[in-house]
Amino acid sequence: MEKIELINCYKRISSYIHRTPVLTSRMMNEIANADLYFKCENFQKMGAFKMRGAINAILQLSESEREKGVVTHSSGNFAQALSLAAQNLGVKAYIVMPSTAPQVKKDAVKGYGGEILECEPTVAASEKAAKKIEINKGASFIHPSNDIDVILGQGTACMELLEDYPDLDFIFTPVGGGGLIGGTALSAHFFGRNCNVMGGEPFEADDAYRSIKSGKIESNKTTNTIADGLKTQLGDINFPIIQKYVTKIIRVTEGEIIIAMKLIWERMKIIVEPSSAVAFAAILKTKNMYSGKKIGVILSGGNVDLSKLPF
Amino acid sequence: MEKIELINCYKRISSYIHRTPVLTSRMMNEIANADLYFKCENFQKMGAFKMRGAINAILQLSESEREKGVVTHSSGNFAQALSLAAQNLGVKAYIVMPSTAPQVKKDAVKGYGGEILECEPTVAASEKAAKKIEINKGASFIHPSNDIDVILGQGTACMELLEDYPDLDFIFTPVGGGGLIGGTALSAHFFGRNCNVMGGEPFEADDAYRSIKSGKIESNKTTNTIADGLKTQLGDINFPIIQKYVTKIIRVTEGEIIIAMKLIWERMKIIVEPSSAVAFAAILKTKNMYSGKKIGVILSGGNVDLSKLPF
Repeated sequence: MEKIELINCYKRISSYIHRTPVLTSRMMNEIANADLYFKCENFQKMGAFKMRGAINAILQLSESEREKGVVTHSSGNFAQALSLAAQNLGVKAYIVMPSTAPQVKKDAVKGYGGEILECEPTVAASEKAAKKIEINKGASFIHPSNDIDVILGQGTACMELLEDYPDLDFIFTPVGGGGLIGGTALSAHFFGRNCNVMGGEPFEADDAYRSIKSGKIESNKTTNTIADGLKTQLGDINFPIIQKYVTKIIRVTEGEIIIAMKLIWERMKIIVEPSSAVAFAAILKTKNMYSGKKIGVILSGGNVDLSKLPF
Repeated sequence: MEKIELINCYKRISSYIHRTPVLTSRMMNEIANADLYFKCENFQKMGAFKMRGAINAILQLSESEREKGVVTHSSGNFAQALSLAAQNLGVKAYIVMPSTAPQVKKDAVKGYGGEILECEPTVAASEKAAKKIEINKGASFIHPSNDIDVILGQGTACMELLEDYPDLDFIFTPVGGGGLIGGTALSAHFFGRNCNVMGGEPFEADDAYRSIKSGKIESNKTTNTIADGLKTQLGDINFPIIQKYVTKIIRVTEGEIIIAMKLIWERMKIIVEPSSAVAFAAILKTKNMYSGKKIGVILSGGNVDLSKLPF
């Protein structure tokens, strides 16, 4: 991986995404005893950073590939991101979703023009259904996190953040499938000044923490977390990047996630989803480590069901 | 009132307040069929525009007046605003609050260093208690909305908005005690280019609508609205300004307020209080009037009790 690949990726996608604002808060700085810079990907198109990777992955396809469409399996933000990215580029998107996915998520995908294919709620059934579309329609499969073009796209949020604040000592992201933290780690390596990339991960889905410890990709034993965007697994493309460039992964409890989320809502007056709060929860948990340091925090998204809040 | 007074007011307070961002949203523009510019006073210090007027009013006091402190009666955002403004300026703040005020609001005032004096939950009791402090402590009474220095301070949000977007056709604000819409109307008059100031007001507390109709200050018959910041009455200082400079007041139902609030939360990923949503609800209600126009919306504040949401 070379620096130029990230630079080219950013040039490629920049007209299709928002350059999201960076918010600061004196009160949050006092609470964390550090200078925090919140990169608001909750304000990104479709409400999450996933738009970046989705656009980049489609833009890397050839004209003839694009004509046949793209396919992914996701019940979360990547389903919406790929749908909207494809719509913006005039490409057909097939989205494999478990039949059990909430209606609100199905409606969002449809709203962005994605065609939903329902399957049994298992990983095997999802993969099989996506494979079928690849074969029958000739559509290009785009993985939500274990795809180098997706990873590079997600890394552009960190590029923007470091362009605004070049001397960050740390950048925290949540860790789910590994696309965001992988891309962030590459960006921090190429564009930061000794900037440490740290991950926040729920104890209830701590595959990344355990994978780094054991040196091989571990599975989630449970995924019983409110941070529904972080239930997914690391993959063989992003794991080596994370191993090489991520400083540390800090695990947090469900209670710590909810406290962090409520603080962001109440003090910053912005809506973030539980997954976003995981990165901030990791800072709060270890805050004696960062006294006076400059810390970037990637607020990954803001798609929540307002009728199901944890407070 | 002269233009220079607003300019001087802004110079006086600008180092004590945030210049709040203006957000736009393609989806909200589509919904409203107009170009909307949301002035985010929910990101203002203490979470509402009231900080502007409170700072200005205290800064207009003499040194010897400041030494004796300030007093107001409020159970809402002005109580917090005057407390924080006073704290920032090293001035003592006495806040008369009804004994029935929620503990969370009392705690917020205490957190900003205000001294709370509880009274019976009637207007007469509040005024009497405030008068007592004026007499016994020599404190200067500052009315939450019917005070020209408060009105000018509140008008600076509109000044900033028009500096960013000089050619707005309309600016919408919620209407409560009349401080915000009064100040906004003055700013739009002096700094706008034929900019119409419009008010949104709940049917359940429609004193401003009826006062403009009758030509004299009317009382609220009911104040049974979710927009708790708008239960207050117009006063003799802001009413003539509103009569002279406000184009129209549009009344909205409680259901319309909740729909507007939910749209702002879900689409813009920001937290606004119900009072803020009243201005946007008024736009949605009359949206056939503004096709293709540029509309500023003052999102007045973001202080909500997350455990008591209407959705």
